[in-house]
Amino acid sequence: MNKTVEYHFLKSALTLDNPFLSTENFIDWLAKKKASVNHNITPIQFSEMKNWGFNESTGNLEHQSGKFFSIEGIKVKTNWGNVAEWSQPIINQSEVGFLGIITKNIDGVLYFLMQAKIEPGNINAVQLSPTLQATKSNYTQVHKGNTPLYLEYFMEDRADVKVLLDQLQSEQGARFLKKRNRNIIVEVTSDIEVKDDFCWLTLGQIKELLAFDNVINMDTRTVISGIPYGNLNTLNETGISVQSDFLQSELDANNSLHSIESIISWITKHKAFAELEVNQIPLNSIKDWMKDDETIYHKDHKYFSVIGVRAEIGNREVHSWTQPLVKSAQEGLIAFIIKKINGVLHFLVQVKLESGNFDIIELAPTVQCLTGNYRKGKNEYEVAFIDYVLNPEANNAKVLYATFQSEEGGRFFKEQNKNMLIEVGDDFDVNVPDKYIWMTLNQIKTFIKFNNYLNIQSRSLLSAVKLCR
Amino acid sequence: MNKTVEYHFLKSALTLDNPFLSTENFIDWLAKKKASVNHNITPIQFSEMKNWGFNESTGNLEHQSGKFFSIEGIKVKTNWGNVAEWSQPIINQSEVGFLGIITKNIDGVLYFLMQAKIEPGNINAVQLSPTLQATKSNYTQVHKGNTPLYLEYFMEDRADVKVLLDQLQSEQGARFLKKRNRNIIVEVTSDIEVKDDFCWLTLGQIKELLAFDNVINMDTRTVISGIPYGNLNTLNETGISVQSDFLQSELDANNSLHSIESIISWITKHKAFAELEVNQIPLNSIKDWMKDDETIYHKDHKYFSVIGVRAEIGNREVHSWTQPLVKSAQEGLIAFIIKKINGVLHFLVQVKLESGNFDIIELAPTVQCLTGNYRKGKNEYEVAFIDYVLNPEANNAKVLYATFQSEEGGRFFKEQNKNMLIEVGDDFDVNVPDKYIWMTLNQIKTFIKFNNYLNIQSRSLLSAVKLCR
Repeated sequence: MNKTVEYHFLKSALTLDNPFLSTENFIDWLAKKKASVNHNITPIQFSEMKNWGFNESTGNLEHQSGKFFSIEGIKVKTNWGNVAEWSQPIINQSEVGFLGIITKNIDGVLYFLMQAKIEPGNINAVQLSPTLQATKSNYTQVHKGNTPLYLEYFMEDRADVKVLLDQLQSEQGARFLKKRNRNIIVEVTSDIEVKDDFCWLTLGQIKELLAFDNVINMDTRTVISGIPYGNLNTLNETGISVQSDFLQSELDANNSLHSIESIISWITKHKAFAELEVNQIPLNSIKDWMKDDETIYHKDHKYFSVIGVRAEIGNREVHSWTQPLVKSAQEGLIAFIIKKINGVLHFLVQVKLESGNFDIIELAPTVQCLTGNYRKGKNEYEVAFIDYVLNPEANNAKVLYATFQSEEGGRFFKEQNKNMLIEVGDDFDVNVPDKYIWMTLNQIKTFIKFNNYLNIQSRSLLSAVKLCR
Repeated sequence: MNKTVEYHFLKSALTLDNPFLSTENFIDWLAKKKASVNHNITPIQFSEMKNWGFNESTGNLEHQSGKFFSIEGIKVKTNWGNVAEWSQPIINQSEVGFLGIITKNIDGVLYFLMQAKIEPGNINAVQLSPTLQATKSNYTQVHKGNTPLYLEYFMEDRADVKVLLDQLQSEQGARFLKKRNRNIIVEVTSDIEVKDDFCWLTLGQIKELLAFDNVINMDTRTVISGIPYGNLNTLNETGISVQSDFLQSELDANNSLHSIESIISWITKHKAFAELEVNQIPLNSIKDWMKDDETIYHKDHKYFSVIGVRAEIGNREVHSWTQPLVKSAQEGLIAFIIKKINGVLHFLVQVKLESGNFDIIELAPTVQCLTGNYRKGKNEYEVAFIDYVLNPEANNAKVLYATFQSEEGGRFFKEQNKNMLIEVGDDFDVNVPDKYIWMTLNQIKTFIKFNNYLNIQSRSLLSAVKLCR
C-alpha cells in the first residue's frame, strides 16, 4: 500500500535508532570533522578585501562581478511600532537559492542526507547543513566553479527523484531585502553515493541534535520546519505508540481556539492597516550609521555592524578568500510561549513588521529580540511577555527547550540567538493583545505551506519541536 | 445546531427564490436606477482637469493632494516570456481599500446587501457593487467628505457583526503597481436599514445575474470569487438535491489530478526561476509612449492609453469632477479551459508574470489576452490554446459560459472583457505545457484563501461559476 508523504516524515521523526550512524557516533563523527578542518577567520580592513569594494557613487559594498550579494542602504517609513522612519544597511541578494535535502527510504524509514559544512561565520566551524545549499549564481554556473554536489537531483526532472516538499521561505527580514530561498526535500529511489562529509540521519535524530548548541545550521532548521506530519490517523498507521503534547498539537486538526479563516482574517486586517514603504538608497546616504576602515556601524553601536574577513577554510585543500560579514551587536532571544487550550498546546504567535519583509508582516515568535536589547532599561521600549522568558519560574512557566542556535555562517559572523519554548500555566490569560494570536502546530503547518507566512525565527523554533519524548 | 459558514454560503448559492426581490424584479429595479441617473462622461484635455496635473519634474499625473492615485512610470526587466525589458505607465495606489459585503441571515438564508453604483467608466452607468467600496483615504477621512455608507460595520469590533470571509486580493497586475484590496464579507445579526440604491440578493441570484453583460461589477466579482462552499457533507446538510459538475468540482476534495503540495511545488519552481525587476521611473522617461493634449498612448496605439474625463454623475444631487481614466486599446478575452478528469471538472490554470504583480507570478486563466491582440497575425506572439476559445465547435469544445464583464469603472473607461468557460472533450491532452496545470475548483478555493495566488481575471471567471443549473 502506498503510504503518504506525511506518514514517512512522521515515522522518520519518531525514529531515533539509526543502524548506519547512531546519534552518539554522529557526535564523534562531527567532532572529527571539526578537528580535521582549518577554519581561520581574520577580521581585516575593508581595503584588504579582494574583489570587494565600495561603489564610488553609492558607497554600496559590492563584489566586482556584481554577483553574490551587496550591502546597500534602505530608507524605511511605517505606521507600525514606535519608530516611524529610519534608514539602515541591508543585505541585497535578490536571487532565490536552493536549500535542499535528499532523503532515501531504507527499510521503510526515511533518512536525510546531511552535510558537515564549514562556513566562515560559523561558531564551531562545522555545522550540519542540508545536502545542498546553492545560490542561483552557483547553480546556473554564472561564475565558473565546481558544480555543487548533488545539484543534479534538484535541477532535473528525473524518474528516480520524487519531490516531497517544495516551499519558498523568507530569510531574516531585518537583515535581508526580501530574500527568499527554495526549501526543498526530495526522495531518491536509485542508489546514491554518500560522499565525504555527508551522512544519513533520521529526522528524529536531527531533532535530537537540536538539543545541542550550534550543531544544526539555520538552513537545515528552515527546511525541516515546514515538514507536515498529517493527522491522528497518520500516527495510527505508523504503529508507533507515543504520547506527546507536541505530537498532539501537530496532528490534531479539530481542537484549535481559532479557525484558519479567523486567523487569515486577523492577518488580513493587519496587512491592510500596516504601511511599509521601503526605498533603496545609497549606503553612503543612510543616517546615523558610520564607517571606518574596518566597520560599518550604528552611531550608538546598536543593532549590527558590517565587517570584512579573510577566510582560510578547508581540510585536505584549503581555500582562502575575503568577504563581508554581518556582526550582531549582541546575542538575541527568540521564544514561543505555549499554553494548553482545549487540551491541545497552542503557540502564541506575533504579527511582526520588519523592514526587509516581502509582504509587510510575517508571523513571528511571541518574543523576538535580535537587533535591540531586551534587558530592562537597556532600550527605549519594553518587550511584551519578556518576563516569562527571563524569569520563567517566578511566572509559573516551564522551560521546555533552551539552546543557542546560529544564523547562517555565510553571511553572519558568529551570530547565535537563544531559542526557547516556554509553557505557561492556567493563570496565563487566554486573551492576548491584538498583535498576538494562539495557534496549534497543526495550524502553523498549514500556513508554512504557503509563501511568506512564518518568519525564519519562528521556523527555527518550530524545527526544534520534538515529536517523541 | 450551529451550521458552518460554508453551509450558509452554499445554501445561499443554491437559492434563487427571493421573496423580497425576485431576479426579474431586480432587473426592473436596476433599469429604473439607470433611467433616473445622470451619467455624463466627457473626455477633456488634460489642461482642463481640476486638481490633477503633471508633476513638473517627473511628468507623473497626480492629484494635488497627493491622495487618490497617480499615473507613474515603471521600468521592467524579466527573464519571463518574449520581451525582456520594457517601460510602461502604471497606476500607483498603494493603499489597501475595502471591498465589503454585508450579509444577513433571513429565515435561514444568507442575503447579500448589494448596491446599484454609478462609476464614471461604467458601461451601463450603473452596475451592482458590494455594500462598501472604500479607499483608505475614504475610510480614514483624510480628505473630508461623507463617510461611506455602512462603513461602521467593517471598521469596528461589534457584537452584532461576524466576519465570514476576509482576504487580501490583488488587482490587475498589468495596470496597477502591487495594488491589493481587502475582500471582506460580514454577517450582521441586528436590524439594519436598507438605504436607497441598496437591495438584498441571494448569492444564487448574483451568480444568475452574471449571465448578463456588465451588470455585476468587478468588485463584486472578486469578493464572491473567494467564497468557500465546504465539501460533499455540507451539501447533504443543506438538504438541497442538486447534481452539477461545477458543484462536484467545488465540493470534492479527493479526486484531483495533483495534490495541493504538488501544485505548491510547481508554483515554487516558477517563482524561484522567474526574475522580475520593477523600478519606478518618472512618467516622462518611459520609452515608446507619447503624450498629447488629451492622451498618453503607446506609439503603436497598443495596450492602453490614459485619458482625462469630466464626470457629471448623480440622481437627485449631481456631482461633477474631473479625473484620469485608463482606456484599453481593445476588448480583451479571458477563458478557462475545463476538462473532466477522474470524474471531476478540472480548470486549466496558467502561471503568469505581470509587471505590477505583488509576488512575481500569479495563477491566471488558461487564456488571458487583455493588453495585446489575440487575433491571428495581429500580434508578435501566439496565444496558447486560443483556437479552443475562438473556434470551440471546430475543436470539439463546448462553451459553458460567455459574457462581457467590466473592469472597475472608477479607474477604467468602458473596459469590458469577454469572460468564457469552455469545456473540452476526451481528445484534449491531459498533459499540458509546464506553465499550465489542472486544478479542481476545490483546490482553487484553497489557494484563494491565502494571499496573492489567483489573479483578478481568474477570480472574475470563478465568480461566474453557477453551482445550480
